[in-house]
Amino acid sequence: MSVWITGASGFVGRYLTRELADAGYEVHGIGHGGLEEFERQRIGLQTWLNGEIDAANLNALAARHGLPSKIFHLAGGSSVGLSIAQPLEDFSRTVVSTARLLEWLRGSAPESHVIVASSAAVYGANHSGPISEDAALNPVSPYGQHKRMMEQLCGSYAMTFGVRSTVLRLFSVYGPRLRKQLLWEICSRLQRAEQALVLGGTGSEMRDWTDVRDVARLLKKLAEQPQLETFRIINGGSGRGTSVVDVADMLVANWGGKVEVQYSGITRAGDPFSLMADDAGLRQLSFDWRVSIDQGIADYVKWFKDGCR
Amino acid sequence: MSVWITGASGFVGRYLTRELADAGYEVHGIGHGGLEEFERQRIGLQTWLNGEIDAANLNALAARHGLPSKIFHLAGGSSVGLSIAQPLEDFSRTVVSTARLLEWLRGSAPESHVIVASSAAVYGANHSGPISEDAALNPVSPYGQHKRMMEQLCGSYAMTFGVRSTVLRLFSVYGPRLRKQLLWEICSRLQRAEQALVLGGTGSEMRDWTDVRDVARLLKKLAEQPQLETFRIINGGSGRGTSVVDVADMLVANWGGKVEVQYSGITRAGDPFSLMADDAGLRQLSFDWRVSIDQGIADYVKWFKDGCR
Repeated sequence: MSVWITGASGFVGRYLTRELADAGYEVHGIGHGGLEEFERQRIGLQTWLNGEIDAANLNALAARHGLPSKIFHLAGGSSVGLSIAQPLEDFSRTVVSTARLLEWLRGSAPESHVIVASSAAVYGANHSGPISEDAALNPVSPYGQHKRMMEQLCGSYAMTFGVRSTVLRLFSVYGPRLRKQLLWEICSRLQRAEQALVLGGTGSEMRDWTDVRDVARLLKKLAEQPQLETFRIINGGSGRGTSVVDVADMLVANWGGKVEVQYSGITRAGDPFSLMADDAGLRQLSFDWRVSIDQGIADYVKWFKDGCR
Repeated sequence: MSVWITGASGFVGRYLTRELADAGYEVHGIGHGGLEEFERQRIGLQTWLNGEIDAANLNALAARHGLPSKIFHLAGGSSVGLSIAQPLEDFSRTVVSTARLLEWLRGSAPESHVIVASSAAVYGANHSGPISEDAALNPVSPYGQHKRMMEQLCGSYAMTFGVRSTVLRLFSVYGPRLRKQLLWEICSRLQRAEQALVLGGTGSEMRDWTDVRDVARLLKKLAEQPQLETFRIINGGSGRGTSVVDVADMLVANWGGKVEVQYSGITRAGDPFSLMADDAGLRQLSFDWRVSIDQGIADYVKWFKDGCR
């Protein structure tokens, strides 16, 4: 069975491609970003169309490989910081690409089902404890705002045109090969043997950390569910929160040595204090999170020390 | 003082241009749609740049006329029906044009204040009675969904970048020169002397009808208010609802003759049952609605019978 992944060359996209290819799917990808030939083969991607997600490119993919039964839409902005530095670019990647994809589905592949990677950033600030899917949305960055608009477009195309989509709100996805964000920053600084490891924020920020290997399995599982609703939103979090202090301490412990992490107290713009999933929806699907935070962080440090390959 | 109007060639845009020109403003316009020379002069528009609302055109306008103190952003989709027939086009006109305008403001005119014409369609279905600005938003058409995203973009640029905007949610704007929607349809059919005047819906649909001349004054007033907040949303409705039955009967009475209007009972897609403004916000501004629905409809019929000039 043929499935497509927009943004297949991204962090989550590469794991998802491998997961689907291993399960026997024929996987084609489209999106921005180069993908070297050996890497395309490594992840099991049959085709990589490096370009804009627009009707011309989607038609080209369909002409060569037929219509997909499922599309995983992972393309889009991937950084709060970049969304502040270049908001129109983030808007274009996240919102405009989704509008074009949905319009193409409406006209050319109305039977396809699209699984969309959104973000807990849509919840934004003012939450504490587990957040359910119907909580108020107060995104505090262009990144979160644009993900929210992306979701609304999916809802709109479902309601008015019957285009089917499932939105998965990803929480803090991490894992080997992630070359940015907290774990990357701490490991990089541990490697440089910095004397004072001072991080932003207070350290008590709570996040629902999810290992990318689990997230890839979850995306695949969602696509394989019998789809009962035209439109569904579901939290992709474990329901368990871990503070930045605890993550940093685990990283340092796995790294070895005795570095003390300190916190500046200065909060970054667009950074909510607490983002943890209410996982009631996922529990109904009987999804099993397999990689504990301890194991995930151990694996991450091992990958980093092994040379980030 | 120099002000710009996006969509100045549209129905509301032309009245607003005349209103501002009469008050001594230098008014420049940009947007899609032709504007004949005599019409440009009639409405008092100094410049009409017929083109996309993008950085290149906005820079060109600024190079010729300097930066505006105020921008009235009226460009965007203007039809629920078209938004269903061509949703990506509506998205592009409403959402993408706003994203480009805000990005240009952020970089090139951060001191400007933008007054944005949104729509009560953002409220959507499931309301009855007056709707306040903080009511739940349940838009039921791509048109309403896209207006909502437009508002969110304004809120996002205000929150993250301090770009100042005031969103006016327009209700059912009508008046001479409106060549579509309910009043136009009924007058057209009265003129053709149709025997059976059957309208869609039940006739008991409630709308907050606002005369375009009042709406133009309101937009001008909003721009002249001392702006206390970076971002504000305000209902542009009168707080008074009139049913479709009553509007149709008034039209028929003004037209003369004895046509009985009937209703098919078939509701149009994307058409909420009731849209009436809670006007508490406007009352604080002491805005005076001057054109009653009786006067407005009489004027409309007169304009129509005089040959729609």
